[in-house]
Amino acid sequence: MGTGMTPTPLANPPLPQGPGEELRRLVASLLVVRCSGYLSDPQRRYPRWELDNATLQRLLAAGVGGVILLGGSAAEVRLRTRQLEAWASTDLLLCADVEEGVGQRFEGASWLVPPLALGRLHAEDPAAAVALAERYGRCTGREARALGLNWVLGPVCDVNNNPANPVINVRAWAEDPGPAGALASAFLRGAQAEGVLCCAKHFPGHGDTSTDSHLELPVLPHSRERLEAVELPPFREAIAAGVASVMTAHLLLPALDPVHPATLSPAVLTGLLRRDLAFEGLVVTDALVMEAIAARHGAGEAAVLALEAGADLVLMPADADAALEAIVAAVETGRLPRQRLQASAERRQRALAQTKASQPTAPITHAAAEPLGALSNGPIPEDRALALELVDRSLRHQGGRLVPPAAGGINLVRLDGALGCAFLPAGAPSLAWTTAAGLRTVLLDGTSPSPWQTTSGTAAGDDPLDLERLGQGPVLLQLFVRGNPFRGSAGGQEPWPAVIRQLQAAGRLAGLAVYGSPYLWESLRPLLAEGIPAAWSPGQMPLAQARVLATLGLEPAAAALPPIASGSPTPAKPTATASSTGQLGGAAPREFTD
Amino acid sequence: MGTGMTPTPLANPPLPQGPGEELRRLVASLLVVRCSGYLSDPQRRYPRWELDNATLQRLLAAGVGGVILLGGSAAEVRLRTRQLEAWASTDLLLCADVEEGVGQRFEGASWLVPPLALGRLHAEDPAAAVALAERYGRCTGREARALGLNWVLGPVCDVNNNPANPVINVRAWAEDPGPAGALASAFLRGAQAEGVLCCAKHFPGHGDTSTDSHLELPVLPHSRERLEAVELPPFREAIAAGVASVMTAHLLLPALDPVHPATLSPAVLTGLLRRDLAFEGLVVTDALVMEAIAARHGAGEAAVLALEAGADLVLMPADADAALEAIVAAVETGRLPRQRLQASAERRQRALAQTKASQPTAPITHAAAEPLGALSNGPIPEDRALALELVDRSLRHQGGRLVPPAAGGINLVRLDGALGCAFLPAGAPSLAWTTAAGLRTVLLDGTSPSPWQTTSGTAAGDDPLDLERLGQGPVLLQLFVRGNPFRGSAGGQEPWPAVIRQLQAAGRLAGLAVYGSPYLWESLRPLLAEGIPAAWSPGQMPLAQARVLATLGLEPAAAALPPIASGSPTPAKPTATASSTGQLGGAAPREFTD
Repeated sequence: MGTGMTPTPLANPPLPQGPGEELRRLVASLLVVRCSGYLSDPQRRYPRWELDNATLQRLLAAGVGGVILLGGSAAEVRLRTRQLEAWASTDLLLCADVEEGVGQRFEGASWLVPPLALGRLHAEDPAAAVALAERYGRCTGREARALGLNWVLGPVCDVNNNPANPVINVRAWAEDPGPAGALASAFLRGAQAEGVLCCAKHFPGHGDTSTDSHLELPVLPHSRERLEAVELPPFREAIAAGVASVMTAHLLLPALDPVHPATLSPAVLTGLLRRDLAFEGLVVTDALVMEAIAARHGAGEAAVLALEAGADLVLMPADADAALEAIVAAVETGRLPRQRLQASAERRQRALAQTKASQPTAPITHAAAEPLGALSNGPIPEDRALALELVDRSLRHQGGRLVPPAAGGINLVRLDGALGCAFLPAGAPSLAWTTAAGLRTVLLDGTSPSPWQTTSGTAAGDDPLDLERLGQGPVLLQLFVRGNPFRGSAGGQEPWPAVIRQLQAAGRLAGLAVYGSPYLWESLRPLLAEGIPAAWSPGQMPLAQARVLATLGLEPAAAALPPIASGSPTPAKPTATASSTGQLGGAAPREFTD
Repeated sequence: MGTGMTPTPLANPPLPQGPGEELRRLVASLLVVRCSGYLSDPQRRYPRWELDNATLQRLLAAGVGGVILLGGSAAEVRLRTRQLEAWASTDLLLCADVEEGVGQRFEGASWLVPPLALGRLHAEDPAAAVALAERYGRCTGREARALGLNWVLGPVCDVNNNPANPVINVRAWAEDPGPAGALASAFLRGAQAEGVLCCAKHFPGHGDTSTDSHLELPVLPHSRERLEAVELPPFREAIAAGVASVMTAHLLLPALDPVHPATLSPAVLTGLLRRDLAFEGLVVTDALVMEAIAARHGAGEAAVLALEAGADLVLMPADADAALEAIVAAVETGRLPRQRLQASAERRQRALAQTKASQPTAPITHAAAEPLGALSNGPIPEDRALALELVDRSLRHQGGRLVPPAAGGINLVRLDGALGCAFLPAGAPSLAWTTAAGLRTVLLDGTSPSPWQTTSGTAAGDDPLDLERLGQGPVLLQLFVRGNPFRGSAGGQEPWPAVIRQLQAAGRLAGLAVYGSPYLWESLRPLLAEGIPAAWSPGQMPLAQARVLATLGLEPAAAALPPIASGSPTPAKPTATASSTGQLGGAAPREFTD
């Protein structure tokens, strides 16, 4: 990777002829490589994993059959998928991890609350939750297709019955098998009806792990009976609902296979998934570059082992060329039967045919305003309404309305990382509205100087926060905490319960907003004095911030609204319900022109 | 602004007929409104200033003649400018503040060191500096045109003779009138040769102010003689070099006009610029929404006053409709002669004709790799080489090579704001390379908990940093400090000299990197012990970080390089000189797929 200063366009190399070449193209069609959604090489955020354009062109010309995309706005990704198709020599599977709406990954599309929000709603109103999950799927499928994607890497079918799960958490639809299966199936019915393929993951179930398979190999010590009772039912239901693909988990299940992680286990993929669950669709590995696999096997051997175990498609091999060579060699030496790969290629063709046959029921077109195509002025009204309804139905609150302090105060915000933070663009309500209300923001992330009392910089004791260092006045505490891949935890280690007690004892807790983890909310809410304004949204995006803060009694800053001159037509007045991003005139005055 | 949930596309309203309509279209053609470079309304970062698409469509249909863009990647802006042209009913002036390369504003294009870098080089090698300034202009003009822009809002012709200037600073080409004029003129010759218009700003000179006109109205107390000696020469030289437009400054010059700021002053615009300097091109105001103007006059009156004073074009009126109505009324009541506006419209037409007549000398085409058009795989090799040469020629260093500490240490980074920070994308060398070298990053911005010793949270005394709170080990100090609009200061208040002394006394200063301000570098360098590795770049972008850190002895992390399997073709090895972003396999492993 890394073409450097001389990105000389590679002419497609001449294709070798003969049966060897045919085998290579067969193998290549089963690889899914990763690229950036941004067009140019220098814009790649993760050049270690994202192929440069010259390599991408070469591999697609050689018959590579799938690409997973990350990064870029909706407009840019529409261009990118067209470019990939132009470079390809076969029909492509084009996929992305758009589990929480396409806008979770590609700005300009709908960003929805995480699935677990509907699991919570399901306990109160199952029919409403299932109906919303299906609309969630329709929105996701419709927008994915509008960007040129044909494969949604969801729904998560894991049952999040371990609140400490660092990697699944709110990405799961529910904490019990029944609702998880019902909601995941509703999602996939909705999405597949819009003409994309879905992917049930992470087989046979990643919900009860407390380590992150991106970092190491988790072990699931359960018996087959327990798996039948808890982990497998959502997958069975997704398969019954016609899910087009299943993604394997990088975890060890000693009861099924004491040696191989599920991704590489014939017992799990062929024995359990193909035979016992009778799944006839596409089996795709999770990313083979993940440490749980990559650290144990070479790029080539991991791919061979996955296909041997029963996978059809190999996602993000650590080195696509090495995977291709190793698989070809395994066929040529007789280790891997060619028919196995042909069967996989046929499943792939059937899946592609399925996307072409289906007619989306609600094509995104509002041509007058959008000469540049679908989504060029953001989500359609139906999807904006869905995003808002999901936020409002999942929001929980207590207490009264926050009174903005006359003499200033502090907006104390905890998040994973401020750099590149997608949910805090300029004008994000959690910063702009509070600034307008006279609060000074103090932002804590993993790189901040310690805000804690002890000189060693870690919190301890009953009064963990160094309040004097933070400054004077009442404190609005906003916690953006949830499980996230690569973080290694679900955010539960910091002493927020003690902070709540400390701020209340000092008479300084103005309010609390929790964005993300229901478990954190549930641990803090019982500690709150009755009148303290507090709310939780499972979502972290600007729209969730706007609705949470509106619930707490804050408003978009009047000063941030556009001036209305007497002689001018009155512009539509922005309201807190109006935008899918929640950026409603609340922009901080950071920059207009120089 | 703010279309909200029902972005019903507005059909273009039927155009009223008759002479009144003709006047309205004449007036509209002289307005330059602001929009986001992103396509969709919800993606706007500054909805207070950026028109929503429905309003934009309406105004362009009504004859508005110019648009200034901010935000969005190069690929998205190419789509956006096409969209604006489709909506327009007249030829458009499409402009952006791309003073430091088009990539400063639009990711995917070239991001160059700030102009003052060449002012410093000019003192040593005037011919090389002038030649680089012209290539700087060619690069900027070429890439602006590739994105569909035809008007570059540069060069800054201000003489930055006040190191405390919070808003001009490194944006100026030099600190003396001679080099400033020579370099600015070389830039504009290069850019205009590529078929775009340039804009000399901020007339009659904004270099000797210590307040930010974005926030309040600065006063320049100099005599006409002093202006002739210092402020005016670069503008005279730019005019002699054929600059197509001049932008006015929002500042008060009592010697010329004790009442009106330059933007609204007949004495400055008509008397000095048109008559004395004989400028016959376009005079454009700086953004009328800026506080120095907006707080004193209404949106309509400010526009009328600017035209009365002698401006041709009104940039970013606080309310375009109000400006239109007020100007029309001023003509109808005889306050503003219609011929004045017609002369402005003719100048505008001549300028547009100039862009159409010119043939760019080096069209950006590498069709094979870029089926999606210019810049779709980033800057052309010539411009990548320029970006690197500019960084390398302006870099200064002292001391030896940094020895990565065996037992960890701290990468202490100071910057204006981490949220939305364009120069710290994932993989930015100042974070990724240091992490790979075993340093833990502590990020300080305006929202961090105080890192200072005193409990009041502000630094004082000889040992300002609270070292115990920061943690153990040697400290690499990286300071991203420069004058920036809206910050209100040039970053000179914090006690970095005392920090240098403190860290050296404790034997903990591993190295120093300064990105941006030459003044900060010059204040710290004399304090450094001889062997301490230290370097300064005027640039803050990833490429500057890569070169500074390479100078200090750091390297891209080997672990971040792509795996090379024996059977696979060897990919081109990334080098620190290779990428215009400096993202050379140094990505932090934050995310690949879920």
